Amino acid sequence: MITKPTFLIDELKCRSNINYMAEKAASNNLIFRPHFKTHQSLEIGSWFKEVGVSKITVSSIEMASYFSAEWDDITIAFPLNVLEMDAINQLAEKITVNLTIENIASITFLSAHIESSVNIFIKIDVGLHRTGINPANLELINAVLNIIDSNPYINFVGFLGHAGHTYLCKSAEEVKNVHADSLKIMSSLREKYSRKFPNLLVSLGDTPSCSIADDFSGMDEMRPGNFVFYDLMQVKIGSSSVSKIAVALACPIVAIHKDRLEIVIYGGGVHFSKDSLEDNNKIIYGRVVKNNGSTWGDIIPNMYVKSLSQEHGIVKVPKSQITNFKIGDVLIVLPIHSCMTANLMKSYHNKNKLITMM
Amino acid sequence: MITKPTFLIDELKCRSNINYMAEKAASNNLIFRPHFKTHQSLEIGSWFKEVGVSKITVSSIEMASYFSAEWDDITIAFPLNVLEMDAINQLAEKITVNLTIENIASITFLSAHIESSVNIFIKIDVGLHRTGINPANLELINAVLNIIDSNPYINFVGFLGHAGHTYLCKSAEEVKNVHADSLKIMSSLREKYSRKFPNLLVSLGDTPSCSIADDFSGMDEMRPGNFVFYDLMQVKIGSSSVSKIAVALACPIVAIHKDRLEIVIYGGGVHFSKDSLEDNNKIIYGRVVKNNGSTWGDIIPNMYVKSLSQEHGIVKVPKSQITNFKIGDVLIVLPIHSCMTANLMKSYHNKNKLITMM
Repeated sequence: MITKPTFLIDELKCRSNINYMAEKAASNNLIFRPHFKTHQSLEIGSWFKEVGVSKITVSSIEMASYFSAEWDDITIAFPLNVLEMDAINQLAEKITVNLTIENIASITFLSAHIESSVNIFIKIDVGLHRTGINPANLELINAVLNIIDSNPYINFVGFLGHAGHTYLCKSAEEVKNVHADSLKIMSSLREKYSRKFPNLLVSLGDTPSCSIADDFSGMDEMRPGNFVFYDLMQVKIGSSSVSKIAVALACPIVAIHKDRLEIVIYGGGVHFSKDSLEDNNKIIYGRVVKNNGSTWGDIIPNMYVKSLSQEHGIVKVPKSQITNFKIGDVLIVLPIHSCMTANLMKSYHNKNKLITMM
Repeated sequence: MITKPTFLIDELKCRSNINYMAEKAASNNLIFRPHFKTHQSLEIGSWFKEVGVSKITVSSIEMASYFSAEWDDITIAFPLNVLEMDAINQLAEKITVNLTIENIASITFLSAHIESSVNIFIKIDVGLHRTGINPANLELINAVLNIIDSNPYINFVGFLGHAGHTYLCKSAEEVKNVHADSLKIMSSLREKYSRKFPNLLVSLGDTPSCSIADDFSGMDEMRPGNFVFYDLMQVKIGSSSVSKIAVALACPIVAIHKDRLEIVIYGGGVHFSKDSLEDNNKIIYGRVVKNNGSTWGDIIPNMYVKSLSQEHGIVKVPKSQITNFKIGDVLIVLPIHSCMTANLMKSYHNKNKLITMM
């Protein structure tokens, strides 16, 4: 029985999202290396194993250590943190570790301190301008490659990019254009380096591009993460439909203010996170769906979370709906950004079974 | 040694904030019932005991259960969640529990299911319009009081308000005006009900009002929470100075992009939370201070966190400073909203000692 904010997972929807992306990767001859920072769970990870996934992506060394209990080929898609060299050495002794490098200082440090074999992806800035080497800066790429070359423990495996700027796109068409730009940048690099490295891999894979695009030529590996659950942000971008969203937060109603058509739920920033999106000139923090008991139905139109404080959520309710709810009822709310909500909630309720996270 | 995002606490600053507020409460003849949702830690709670605090506020029944190990008089300043009645009964058997009520449905349910003595504050909406009874709605207040009257387990103790709209204020003067309005609303209620309840308490206490105001006439109890750490939001409102901020996040530098004057830190939305504030037409997610080893110094002018993703933070750096940093250095960043950052980080580093949280 739900008594407080509870994070629900719909296993069927989640497995269907996993199957869809695994098949899309297979039919495009891509290595499927899903990003596990979204779900952070060994048990959900096992659902990927069932469809043949054997390589994964994570965003921290801590997360790599957690998943190394059951996975033996892990890419840490975050710039090398030289302060965690001890943990990297421990991990690299045990499993295949793929690191991302984007500057001389990090690869120099790595080369001086690595004690086992590791693989290196050179991180390329495909347009997000967060991390990565400018693809025109061949001098820097060559300098990194020279250091890699000089140490037999370090193996160059390819170029990795993350087109996170698809999250700013407002249509499927825009996402396809961003994705096409990434492919062009990576293909041009492959052309320059394929003679020396005929087996180099090109790894890309934000959820919007992987969900929407149908041309992956020039790419060898995809690394989407959010698609495992999707969320309202992905629906807004056009990479998901509401019916594919596989997680939701169940929140008890603790107050109803009919005069201002608002419901107060137990469910705030410490449960949802404070990610929001703009929808018809309104900022929203979640949308309410029909509560079908242990699962949920369609969105209730014009019913949304309008603000969040630490533990409270304020839900705007259409006049026609306000008398349908009473104190002690449970509202089911779709999250704006499922990665952040999962990270806060720390476990999933799969009907009456609890799925743990790291 | 810091190797990943680490939440630092400056015990001296924190104790000084506690002492200051305890003295302010005492000199104004107020019960000091600090809100513990900010720090969520028994050990930091013990610093309050040392200055004579014996009553506290929390924001959930879960938090009340945690603190009931060492505290025997706890107000749950959140609308009664009727779904957690079993936990409330367990708690009320053990310690003094003060609940807040704002509607008939909740007090009726409570009256039907309570098994031990509990105290009730009627929640009054002093202007935030999040929860609480409109102070002009005496009919509703009377109806709640009648139900309380009919059950000997339930004791009415007073009116409670939260002027959270001080967080929207842009000057100390504005905060004082909001606070004066709250006092006026509560005094008017006291006048109406003091004949029947000569000992009724008026409880107020957001951090901006408690920090800035100097007139507390008509108030019996203050419940500030954030002041224990303060943060950049409080500095912006005018309720704190930078030197009083008692927590900061230490974040390793993992990349430096001189061309765009940016540093990439290991420290993102899962560490800071995504609260932001507007400063000179820029949205900022944190400010960098001088790293003095285990403690920190002044803000480095024009150096701030400009964006956060799940694990990355992007720091804008003035041209004059960019060569002062290298990969592997640790930046110390003051948070925008310390309550949310503490909730994510789950423990404090007090020099080399770890302080745990619930």
